[in-house]
Amino acid sequence: MAMTLYELLGADDRRFSPFCWRARLALAHKGFDADRVGVRFCDKELIAFSGQTLVPVLVDGETVVSDSWNIACYLEDTYPDRPALFGGDAAKPLAHFINTWADYTQRTTLTTLIVFDIFNHIEKIDWEYFRSHREQRFGMALEDVQKNRDRDVAVFREALQPLRTVLESRPYIAGEAPTYPDYILLGTFLFARTMSPFKLLKEDDPVYAWRARMLGLFDGMATKAIGYPC
Amino acid sequence: MAMTLYELLGADDRRFSPFCWRARLALAHKGFDADRVGVRFCDKELIAFSGQTLVPVLVDGETVVSDSWNIACYLEDTYPDRPALFGGDAAKPLAHFINTWADYTQRTTLTTLIVFDIFNHIEKIDWEYFRSHREQRFGMALEDVQKNRDRDVAVFREALQPLRTVLESRPYIAGEAPTYPDYILLGTFLFARTMSPFKLLKEDDPVYAWRARMLGLFDGMATKAIGYPC
Repeated sequence: MAMTLYELLGADDRRFSPFCWRARLALAHKGFDADRVGVRFCDKELIAFSGQTLVPVLVDGETVVSDSWNIACYLEDTYPDRPALFGGDAAKPLAHFINTWADYTQRTTLTTLIVFDIFNHIEKIDWEYFRSHREQRFGMALEDVQKNRDRDVAVFREALQPLRTVLESRPYIAGEAPTYPDYILLGTFLFARTMSPFKLLKEDDPVYAWRARMLGLFDGMATKAIGYPC
Repeated sequence: MAMTLYELLGADDRRFSPFCWRARLALAHKGFDADRVGVRFCDKELIAFSGQTLVPVLVDGETVVSDSWNIACYLEDTYPDRPALFGGDAAKPLAHFINTWADYTQRTTLTTLIVFDIFNHIEKIDWEYFRSHREQRFGMALEDVQKNRDRDVAVFREALQPLRTVLESRPYIAGEAPTYPDYILLGTFLFARTMSPFKLLKEDDPVYAWRARMLGLFDGMATKAIGYPC
């Protein structure tokens, strides 16, 4: 039976949630091609069946799983004969650490660079919710949060140092092939790419080359999604 | 044959390098009790045999290994029958990511809180080197770097969020027992504890309880070292 993935939906069919990208990439790694249902911020009733209000939500037959980390663990545990996402029990908790680090870095150093671009690429019906929620978080008008981004992007680039260092000695975070930590971080970049033309990386950054490799995975799945060139 | 670990040495026999602590904890995990040689900043000739200028340096028979990460990998590869530091090939590169994250967090958010305390606990012969080197890095007098630490400590605590999140669901980073990522992070806290009385953590922080568990390891080895109570 086909699986269904509920994803955050912006204007023009933009699927921009970094967490939904993580789930979609995990599904692709396992060889699944789920049906996809777009959910705007105002469409929470579409996922009421999951007992909570956040996407991604994965439906696999009778099973409903929400939260990208839970979805990755569910896929790994339920389909152990398909390509491993984590590469073993010892690696999984460390991937969880990286998951949390990515959330923190995204929230504190990336969203400030693109939040008004995000606003401009969601549907009007979501504008009031998004603006009031994010302006409360940042304590200023959305237009002002990203106005110094040409300067502030240095903080984001510096915060990527752990990723950069490991990529200096291998092509993917865990070695010769992508695993879930790579999808976690790619989700961050796809979130940006889907909604903002702002250049996050310098071309001589090892993270830039890694991102290019990642964008080519799964027959270029990510590059075919609606968004800006990186 | 006994191993020898060359460690950074402050005044009053304080062994304060976070990187040397990582090596010492890795040795303890593997069940080794190395001889220890203190090296002040001005004592670089003591480790000239290693072909570089930084501690830790481990000497194991004919083998000389420098750099804490290299030492951990050397111990794991050379003594596979002793307790595993990483728990498998898939976990090791992710531990390397955490190693780099810890370096970055320490450099950007912790050292600023305690750098003048460090100066006050190294021997006078190292003062000129330390002050000129660190004042160049921070662009101000050592006395001024940490003067707003009651406010700046919030940035350090917030940067620990990835550690905090994983510790909310398990006692150690990788699960039920300490592994090398725990020693990496404990090294950061021992660096501070050895040189500064400043309180880094709130008592209701899961990181606080984890640190207390870690301090009790190896028959309280870390708490017996010269330093301040946490």
